[in-house]
Amino acid sequence: MSLHGSYDPDNLFAKILRGEIPCVKVMEDEVALAFMDIFPQSRGHTLVVPKDVTARNFLELPRDKIGPYLERVQHIAIAVEMALKPDGIVVTQFNGAPAGQTIFHLHFHIIPRYDGARLAGHGHGAKADTAELEAIAREIAAAL
Amino acid sequence: MSLHGSYDPDNLFAKILRGEIPCVKVMEDEVALAFMDIFPQSRGHTLVVPKDVTARNFLELPRDKIGPYLERVQHIAIAVEMALKPDGIVVTQFNGAPAGQTIFHLHFHIIPRYDGARLAGHGHGAKADTAELEAIAREIAAAL
Repeated sequence: MSLHGSYDPDNLFAKILRGEIPCVKVMEDEVALAFMDIFPQSRGHTLVVPKDVTARNFLELPRDKIGPYLERVQHIAIAVEMALKPDGIVVTQFNGAPAGQTIFHLHFHIIPRYDGARLAGHGHGAKADTAELEAIAREIAAAL
Repeated sequence: MSLHGSYDPDNLFAKILRGEIPCVKVMEDEVALAFMDIFPQSRGHTLVVPKDVTARNFLELPRDKIGPYLERVQHIAIAVEMALKPDGIVVTQFNGAPAGQTIFHLHFHIIPRYDGARLAGHGHGAKADTAELEAIAREIAAAL
């Protein structure tokens, strides 16, 4: 899918936001939902998606939503840092399939980096164990 | 440098913000400065840095600065898209050296992706020709 097109209300994250598909939740408020990536590139890989928008990507997010949404992204990134003590954190966001986007509801990735550890490729990580993700999510949520 | 430490007022981007070192400027207003990466990972690789902050990374940006700054990041990304018509755009930001950060003043990367073209490695691209960067910057600025 290119950068241009229409929002598909049946994309995976829309279904998660509607509660039709489960997720391992870290935080939810009126602005955003944060949950664990089930194909994590590293321990603690978290996704933050904005609610009540039909933005496929960051370019399409209405301007008045940018601040509130990115405040949540920062809040979660700080909690990931406090909880998991990684050596670095990548904050990244893909617009369009050629940029690496696979699900067409805006999301920012928060990807901890640990010294000496390589990242699993985006979309190529192994599926994580749900109980393990739940334990990590609890650690992050406790640091919020 | 780890995620923790103090802001060095003599980092490269602080010098660029003070006008002590030149840059190929795309946009500047009271909130942010956007300029071309001189080691571009792809054609149109642009950096956006916030002004009047001593934030080494996104985790340290004061909450009230997040919205205005990220609105500029989006504005520049949209202009990159309109001007250069890439097939995708990566928006990314590194916190800490182990995450890939090399200059310790907060910056977001806007990296166009073109179908079939690989990215130069971060920090491993060839130094760009200034006249070429200036031409690209003019194209992006014209789309703002």
